[in-house]
Parts: sequence; C-alpha cells; structure tokens
Amino acid sequence: MVSLPGLTPIDPTSTAFLLAENRHMPMHVGGLQLFERPKGAGPDYVRSMFEHMRDTAEVSPLFLKHPHRSARTAGALVWRNDAHFDIEHHLRHSALPQPGRVRELLELVGRLHSTRLAWERPLWEMHVIEGLADGRIGLYTKLHHALVDGVSAMRLMASGLSTDPDQREMPAPFALQPRKPRAVDDAAAALAHPASTASRLLTELPADALRSALAITADAAGMPGALVRTLRKGLRNETSAVSLAAPRTIFNQSITGARRFAAQDWEVERLQAVSRATGTTINDVVLAMCSGAMRTYLGELDALPDASLVSMVPVSLKVKQAGDPNPDGGNAIGSVMVRLATDVADPAERLSTIHRSMKDGKEALSSMTPTQIVAMSAIGMAPSIVVPALRLQGMVRPPFNLIISNVPGPRSAQYWNGSKLVGAYPASIPINGMALNITCTSYNGNMAFGLTGCRRAVPRLQRLLTHLDDELAALESAAGVA
Amino acid sequence: MVSLPGLTPIDPTSTAFLLAENRHMPMHVGGLQLFERPKGAGPDYVRSMFEHMRDTAEVSPLFLKHPHRSARTAGALVWRNDAHFDIEHHLRHSALPQPGRVRELLELVGRLHSTRLAWERPLWEMHVIEGLADGRIGLYTKLHHALVDGVSAMRLMASGLSTDPDQREMPAPFALQPRKPRAVDDAAAALAHPASTASRLLTELPADALRSALAITADAAGMPGALVRTLRKGLRNETSAVSLAAPRTIFNQSITGARRFAAQDWEVERLQAVSRATGTTINDVVLAMCSGAMRTYLGELDALPDASLVSMVPVSLKVKQAGDPNPDGGNAIGSVMVRLATDVADPAERLSTIHRSMKDGKEALSSMTPTQIVAMSAIGMAPSIVVPALRLQGMVRPPFNLIISNVPGPRSAQYWNGSKLVGAYPASIPINGMALNITCTSYNGNMAFGLTGCRRAVPRLQRLLTHLDDELAALESAAGVA
Repeated sequence: MVSLPGLTPIDPTSTAFLLAENRHMPMHVGGLQLFERPKGAGPDYVRSMFEHMRDTAEVSPLFLKHPHRSARTAGALVWRNDAHFDIEHHLRHSALPQPGRVRELLELVGRLHSTRLAWERPLWEMHVIEGLADGRIGLYTKLHHALVDGVSAMRLMASGLSTDPDQREMPAPFALQPRKPRAVDDAAAALAHPASTASRLLTELPADALRSALAITADAAGMPGALVRTLRKGLRNETSAVSLAAPRTIFNQSITGARRFAAQDWEVERLQAVSRATGTTINDVVLAMCSGAMRTYLGELDALPDASLVSMVPVSLKVKQAGDPNPDGGNAIGSVMVRLATDVADPAERLSTIHRSMKDGKEALSSMTPTQIVAMSAIGMAPSIVVPALRLQGMVRPPFNLIISNVPGPRSAQYWNGSKLVGAYPASIPINGMALNITCTSYNGNMAFGLTGCRRAVPRLQRLLTHLDDELAALESAAGVA
Repeated sequence: MVSLPGLTPIDPTSTAFLLAENRHMPMHVGGLQLFERPKGAGPDYVRSMFEHMRDTAEVSPLFLKHPHRSARTAGALVWRNDAHFDIEHHLRHSALPQPGRVRELLELVGRLHSTRLAWERPLWEMHVIEGLADGRIGLYTKLHHALVDGVSAMRLMASGLSTDPDQREMPAPFALQPRKPRAVDDAAAALAHPASTASRLLTELPADALRSALAITADAAGMPGALVRTLRKGLRNETSAVSLAAPRTIFNQSITGARRFAAQDWEVERLQAVSRATGTTINDVVLAMCSGAMRTYLGELDALPDASLVSMVPVSLKVKQAGDPNPDGGNAIGSVMVRLATDVADPAERLSTIHRSMKDGKEALSSMTPTQIVAMSAIGMAPSIVVPALRLQGMVRPPFNLIISNVPGPRSAQYWNGSKLVGAYPASIPINGMALNITCTSYNGNMAFGLTGCRRAVPRLQRLLTHLDDELAALESAAGVA
C-alpha cells in the first residue's frame, strides 16, 4: 500500500476489478431509472433538471477520484482526485430518436453501457435522457465496480430520493451531502423486502464488510492462488449448493465489448399469488420465470442443452456458528448454485424443482463454515476475477451458466424534486464465459428485471422479455391463479 | 505476410495504424454531413432514411472486414470477413436533446468520435442524427484509419452522392455498388478545387499510391528505424520547409481518449476576396484565420508562446525530377512546415508572413529529391506513427505544433435521395503530442473547418470558432474588402 500526499490506496478488491478490465469486458455496473414529470412541468423541464444537476456546487469525493499510477507510486494503482474535474464529461444530456418507445431507450442504454470509463477521470457517467413518447424521463447511471458493487449502486441511487412528492431543492445523487442519519435509516429500512423476510435474498451486509471478507484471502496483485485454493477446498465438499458441472451454453463463451440491455417489470402481486398457491418463495418464481424464458430462448436458437442450466444465486443468511466473522452477528452473503430445470417441460414441475434446489442449497450453505461461505461469496461477488482464475487452475467447464440476482429495493414511491420514480432497472457486467447477467429489483409493488448481455454472444436479447412474460402467465395458469 | 483461406493480409501502413491505437488515441477519422430534407418529407422521413440504409442487401467488402489475429496467423494481424456481421451495430439512429442547436449536435459528435472501434467488428460506424431544430439531418461517419485516410474518407462519402436532386433509389454509402466509371470520374472532377489550381493543396494522389510510397521504407513490424533514418537525413538538409524547432504549447502534450469537435463554414467568396486583394492564396487565408484564432485562444489562456507556432501543412505538387516514383507523372504529396506568425499582432502582416513561409516551403520542397519528399510525406500522412518514433529517436521538441489540412471537396450541390447536402465537416485524429487537428474542406461555395481536439488538453475548443470568425473579419478589414 502506498501513502503519498493527495493519493489514497485502492483496496485489493477494487484493484482487482480495475486490473480485470479490458476492452471486451468493461467493469462497470449501471442502472436505468424512469421518472414521471411533475404536474405542470414545462417543455424545458428536462433541460432544467439537467442544468440543476450540472450546477452542483460540491461533488461527493467518491465521484471525484480516479485511478492513477506513476513512478511516484512505484507503479501501484492509487486513487487521486481529478485536478481537472469536468462535470460535463460525466453528466450528459441525451435524447431518443422518434418514435421514442422503450425500444429506442433500451437501445441507447445498451450502447451507453458498452463504452468503457476512462481511467484519467472519475469512474462514472450519468445520462439524462429525453424523448420518450410518453414524456417520461430516463436517467442512466454508470459506476465502475471499483467504486461500488451493484447493490451499493442501487442504494446510492435510492438514497438521493425522497418519499415526499413536494420536496424540492434536492441535490444531484453525486452531490456532497451532509450525512443525515435518519435519511440513511429510511433508505435502509425501505430496502428490506416486504414478502421475503423468511427467505430474504441479498443483502443487508454492507459492501465494505464483504470487501474485507474477500480481501482476507486476496492479495494486492489481483486474485491469486490463495483464494482459488480456498475455493477449491470449499467446493470439493460437494453439496447441492455447489456445482462444477454446468453444461456448456452459448452464454459461456468469449464476449465482445458491445452490450444489449433489456428491462421490464411485473407486479409483485402476480408473483406473490403464484408463490402463495405453490408454497414457494417469490424468488423461486423469479428463477422459474428466468428458467422458462431461457428454455424457450435457447430452444428457438436450437441451443438448449440436455442437462439443466445452473444459475449462481447470491443469498443472504444468518451465520450462527462459532467463529462468525461478523462481530455484529449480522447477515452474511452466500451463493447457491440452483439447477434451473431447463430440461423440464412443465412449468409447475420446473418451479417445484427450483424450489427444492434452492432450499437444499441454502441448507447446505448454512451448514458450511464461515471460511467456506466466504469462499462461496467470492464466486458470487467477484466472478470476473474468480471464473478466469478457476480456468487458469484447469477447471474448464463453467461452474455455472449465469448469475441471477434479486436485490430488494424501496417499497414506497420515491421522488426527486417532484418527479416520481416509476421504474428502476439494474444493468450489470457480462464477463468472459458469462455473457448474460440477470439482475432483478423490487420497487413500489413491481419486480423489475434487468438483462445485460454481450451483443454478439447473446443475440436477440429482447426476446427474453416476451418469454419472461409468457412464462409468468404459464406459471399463473399452472398454479391456478390466472 | 500471411496467406490463408478467408484471410487477407493487412498492408504495413494499416498495420501500423492498428498497432499505434490505444485507449487514449483511437485511430479513426470521421465526418459530419448535414442534409436538408426534400420538400414534402413527412415526420417519418429520418426513420425511413435510416431503415433504407439498414436494409442494404449487400455491403461493400471494405465494410465487412475486421482485423484478426490468432495462432493460425502466427500472431500476425490479417483482415477477416466478419462472420456475424450485424448492421445494427454499425448503423445507428440517434437524436439530439432540446433545443436541438448546432451546439447539441457538436457535443454528440464529439462523444461519438471519442469511442474506439472494436476490432471484433468491421471498423466503421454511421449515425443518422435527428432532432436539429431547423429540421436538418446529421450523418456522422467514423472509419478506422487502417481502412482509409481522411482524404479517401471524404471521397468515399462524396462518391455516394449525386448532383441530381430528383435521383432516388440511391444506396447507402457502404452498399456494394457496381463500379460506374463515369460516376467515379465525376467525383474526381468535382474534387478539383476551383480557385486554387496554381497552389493546389491536397491531393490528386490516390491513397493507395501514397501507401505504397510510405511502405517503401516501412516494414511489417510498424514504423521502424529505416524510415526514421531517412526522415532524419532528409530533415537535416534544413530549409524553411523543415522545422524541428516549434515552441512547446498546450497542444503538444499527452492526450486522453475524450474528444471535442467544433465545425463551421464560411463563404469561399469571402476568403477569395481577401486572397485577391492581398496577392495570397485561399489556403494562405485559411492558415491566417487559424493563426489569428489560435493567437487569441492561447492568449486568453495565457499560454501563447513567444515564438511562432509551426503548422505542418500537406501540399500536392508536381514532381518533375528524374527518378520520379510516379510513372504517370502525376502529383505527389509533400509537407510544408509553415510559420503561422502567431507572434505577430497585425493581421495583414501575419497573412503576408504566412504567404512567404508557405511559398518558401513549397519551393524548397520542389527542389527536394523524391526520397526526401516521400520522407516528408510520411510525416504528414502518418504523424501518429512518425511523431512518437522521432521521440524515441531522442527528438524531444515537437517538430511542429499541429496539422492544418485543406482538402478540396465537390464544387456543386450534392444530393442523396433528394436530401441536399448543405455541409460537410471532417473530424480527424488528435495524437499524443498533437492534441488539436484542423481539417478544412470546400463544398459548393463554402469553406468548412473541422476542429478535433482532446477534450482535456484543448479546453473550450468551441471558442476557436468565434475567433476564426473574428479573424476573417479582421483580414477583410485589413485587405480593404470588408
């Protein structure tokens, strides 16, 4: 670690995310938020929104630092404040071509998500997007994984909002704000998912704590043998939580730098009805939707493997064993390998198989030692580092086919200066060997799906949205709640 | 050179352009064209224009090949046809935010010009841009320098147009077209500049011929010692055509990957009036405009050096000596180092100094041997390769401060399916140590200036447009033609 005036060290995990990046694999997470204009907003509303953000007097330190290395730092990467900070490079005003449908919006977000962040500048962009035919406003945000992980990014975006539609003078999400403990608590409380306390998925654990856990076995050089050895050791006690036998699919190939993004949401109430009628969890229903959609999608491409696809699913769980690495006795993150039952034709059977696989996996996980859990977590949180490392270690089959995350979001309606947030969709990081990522997030009664794929490896990504919709209908029908 | 089925060799110059590229220095040229809608065009006109291009049945080979290297090619770069060609990756429909001024257009073009072309795909993009308040349509095209140089790119874009406003069913510029010799001749004829036959600048020489000339001294590894030695030898016979003593300026520093683009045009008639009244050439007036604008710009930034800036200016000239490498007795390209007289306050004196410097340079050049001319040409055509090579050879001062090119374009109005071309502005390649590029092109009575700069090294690039305008007025006033 380097200590020089004006420079701050970069923790090993962030360093690893920076070093893992290349032109085929930009390492940023993103999010698309959709806002409704407040009543009485004039034709200049979007521009004034943009200008209000642009004129931010003081920007938060997170949004001012960039990675730097030089002879002075002996070649090590450090954070340095950008001496030439240029807000107009980061905050941009964009527009959609006619007819301004969601299709044009997703196309633009896919393109914006494809371009890599320059290291000479703070690692973020925010795009205010006008031109949707229905008058809604898009806000696409891009943040390097070295700054925040996906969960923290969602929180960061949510923390700048208010439940009060009449609040005004609200700063931009990247503005320096006096810490308001109450607001932070509100945001944290809002993030607790309503209907899934029993089987809560991701994650009350602060990202920093996880980073530390990960750093236990990582060293500054990236992601070395030590972690991989721990992983292999943990994985060798094979349980149903662990899979090193996923079939090869089109998702598990080399990727290019171009991205497609697809997003849509469904009422949580519909998923809840299926979950109640079948004795499964909402997350099981989310996974079953993904499973059925991928079965149809791969079938159409004549690329459906005989064996079931395996998804890595991050979960949160109480760690109750001695030697708990969490002194607060809080939650820890684990990863369950779920058989998606893509080899099963019947939707009801698929759902029940997923439910069992998930249940087994979580039980197995809860009997693992903290070290094993940390090892599993590492796979989930840093696949871009771990998956290539496994390959270097001679594991040539993909340990899983894709990652499906489900991150709880705010329960109640949120506003920014009177504009109501009507949708929030996460965009994540496809990596070499994992060309598709699905991240879901709940907000105000809806479950939003964000699909991020390599533009070449995952053709016609948009079709997955139709298939997701069809699959939810099929599940409703099978559960008798249609 | 590799010869394998389905693969074609890449010539050494193109290889050098590919290898010179990095994330701070994308090696593509670009151009912005502005079209007026035909009379009676409906609200869907831009989309139908986009869709017409997108539905191109057969794409020209130039737009289908991408660089490739593998074990099979023994690590050498070769051209390979893209087996997954995806027109929608290359042809894009974009829009401007309100109020849709030229300012918003230039901001978008600057951003589009910043992103690097992916090697997994053919090295081009074309963006159909709607949303200008006056209804004009923007067409921004981006082509890798390994495919074409700037001059050829302008020609390529021009060759797809017609002088007939009623012609329809015209294909996209990237469509495969049966070679129509007449059409080609027309395009070539149109490129002969009206008022500058005596002192014609750039260039009747086909790019291929120049590439061959350059390749004489280059080898496949890039741009090696042989060329540099030739250059140094040529340059040591120092004449006023040669400068290795330019002052340091803010333009001559390291660059980042982000770009700004500025463009505007002025009536050729105004430049002609100054030129006639002062006994100078139109190109001298162009250079004087640039000189005055940079004097003001650098002065405002408190960064004007005491010594005059030096511009590299590519020129075409008859080579009449024995051993002419051009068997057709055609033109050759040379580079003149012009003292821009930025240390002179008076516009008239500045213009006459530039005129003399240019004249001396061309005379010196015409007395050079063909080998020396080729060496000079190499500086002009491949500065991204030669400038760093000179630095490696221990020449630490910039040999010049920037490149100002003037490329003649079509004289008469051009149309594409009834849309009239009303402006064409070249976007070029800033390189490390040369953060600003100015390329001018004439079209239908106007002289267009395209300024491309590193977003960080050249702050407030747009101001140069105002200064250019002021300087033309000052020159008119000094020449007594205002």
